[in-house]
Amino acid sequence: MTDFRTTPHLSVRVPVLRRNVEGMARFAAGRGIALRPHAKTHKSLDIARLQIAAGARGLTVATLGEAEVFARGGFADLFVAYPLWLDDVKARRMRALLDVAELRLGVDSVEGARRMAVAAGADATRLRVRVEVDSGHHRSGTTPARAGEVAAAAAGAGLAVEGVFTFPGHGYGPGNAARAAADESAALSAARDAVLAEGLPCPVLSGGSTPTAHHAAGSPATELRPGVYVFNDAQQLESGTCGEEAVALTAVCTVVGSRGGTVLVDAGSKVLGADRPAWTSGFGRVAGHPLARVVALSEHHATIDWGTSLHVPVPGDLLRVIPNHVCNAVNLVDELAASEDGFDAIWPVHARGRNS
Amino acid sequence: MTDFRTTPHLSVRVPVLRRNVEGMARFAAGRGIALRPHAKTHKSLDIARLQIAAGARGLTVATLGEAEVFARGGFADLFVAYPLWLDDVKARRMRALLDVAELRLGVDSVEGARRMAVAAGADATRLRVRVEVDSGHHRSGTTPARAGEVAAAAAGAGLAVEGVFTFPGHGYGPGNAARAAADESAALSAARDAVLAEGLPCPVLSGGSTPTAHHAAGSPATELRPGVYVFNDAQQLESGTCGEEAVALTAVCTVVGSRGGTVLVDAGSKVLGADRPAWTSGFGRVAGHPLARVVALSEHHATIDWGTSLHVPVPGDLLRVIPNHVCNAVNLVDELAASEDGFDAIWPVHARGRNS
Repeated sequence: MTDFRTTPHLSVRVPVLRRNVEGMARFAAGRGIALRPHAKTHKSLDIARLQIAAGARGLTVATLGEAEVFARGGFADLFVAYPLWLDDVKARRMRALLDVAELRLGVDSVEGARRMAVAAGADATRLRVRVEVDSGHHRSGTTPARAGEVAAAAAGAGLAVEGVFTFPGHGYGPGNAARAAADESAALSAARDAVLAEGLPCPVLSGGSTPTAHHAAGSPATELRPGVYVFNDAQQLESGTCGEEAVALTAVCTVVGSRGGTVLVDAGSKVLGADRPAWTSGFGRVAGHPLARVVALSEHHATIDWGTSLHVPVPGDLLRVIPNHVCNAVNLVDELAASEDGFDAIWPVHARGRNS
Repeated sequence: MTDFRTTPHLSVRVPVLRRNVEGMARFAAGRGIALRPHAKTHKSLDIARLQIAAGARGLTVATLGEAEVFARGGFADLFVAYPLWLDDVKARRMRALLDVAELRLGVDSVEGARRMAVAAGADATRLRVRVEVDSGHHRSGTTPARAGEVAAAAAGAGLAVEGVFTFPGHGYGPGNAARAAADESAALSAARDAVLAEGLPCPVLSGGSTPTAHHAAGSPATELRPGVYVFNDAQQLESGTCGEEAVALTAVCTVVGSRGGTVLVDAGSKVLGADRPAWTSGFGRVAGHPLARVVALSEHHATIDWGTSLHVPVPGDLLRVIPNHVCNAVNLVDELAASEDGFDAIWPVHARGRNS
């Protein structure tokens, strides 16, 4: 069991997390659309329960392994937002999941749809699928115009097509969210039209991400899938998506060196993650110290340029570092310290490492 | 238990690993110096046993948590190469370790040495310490000239000073190893002289890293601490430290998309790690395909520019991605598939996540 009396460890301010969870739920309810938060961010049954209690329709996950953990934990409405290629092992696991959950899978190609139907066999009609379209992130997803062709292949193979989805990942980074949200709206509309043109229904238009969610006025989306918003992180902070008061997770660390204005702490890439997009100011931020910059990161060291000669921390001082990408940080630990009303609970990261 | 019949997972070619382990052991023996491999790379009792069987003197680790795992696994000669700040929890754990292992700790400041002596209490004389000096990596470590002052503080506080150490981390990257190795030699010599000038013995001069080890002709080092060499990785490959035939660990992944010359696989930062030094060609390399470049990485996707229009993989094909930084990749999984003679053994990553 993690000893939270020493460092480094990941700490969650539960009141902030509750505020984030409830705020996004209220926002989705206000727009009259479904919220299906991405559980890859927290991988925690405890946090998923808070999300469902606040009104989330179901959960999004990235892998069958995550789906298995959440299904066992009692979550029956799961969407694997990934163009899975179902080898024999994954096909068996997918069919087992169909017996315990309402399972939705992503598909983004004709051959992927056919493979999925073969893998599902007699269970195909129970397998709901959503066609992934590329709205500008250029990772996975077919073009909106070809969504109809993929949907028709899936339906023709016996799968239950329920709509389309996209991930506007190009909305990360300062100033990008509004444009990506507009791209998402256009892609979902065009994809829906392409599906309808095949004579298929398209009730689900799923989009959304933490940076773009609040820029989606006029969006045709019927469902939002943000993940990071439960905790937020340094990327969201530096993108302007949130203020520091909305950051719920930090790495508590100890200063192990201090020379001139440079401070060394015992949190490195093995607890913060190594994510470092070019537009970020460093490898994370220091909570409460906006001038400080994490200028270098090793596995067990973060080097911090303190940014001022005032009150430079000394060895033994505790600091809180905000990870750049909280999803990867959480996936590094077995347990989170969840602090509320002066007490620490232990929240296991139930789906940590479930990559396949 | 990890199902190695599906993807993504980390796979070790054991014959290559054995060759790497034995090659470094022979090299150290040929130079007449001790080998103390850094176990943070593999975190595996199985691999540590191979290293000791090949002649390693003991192990290097990064945290007390790793030391505890290896001590319980029967490894009695352990060096925590880190300027630990011993809070009350760590002080208790350190003293417990002294009862089961010959424990060596790093120290790089006068205040750190005093703190360590207070933490050790009556056990101080059993606690071996080594003074860390900065040879040019500019992370932790005092200056070589001040090594004597730190050593004297440690000895004066009752600790058993046994020498000095450095990590020439600036030797990573193409063309940097020879210069960093020379810096290491100069720093270790100067630090030793500074310790001797205080009237203290300095039998241990510990240095070395995978990139610099073979550039250390004429080095005064008495001990080498390479870590990555057991597996190697894309950073070593692109630095010219090893060829692909010496890469023992890859992430086995499935192609989930293929459009034009761009291939998408199901291994992302949650199994490869997100390390991406500016001098690398991408987020990893593709084994057997030297023209391919990993141009983007998400948590569960790697986007590969195939580099040629020939034989572009299609969905369902298996590929092997070489992580940029193998230490962080291994720390993401609970188990490695260890392949030898056509059979896969399971090697647990015993010290995964032991960050404190």
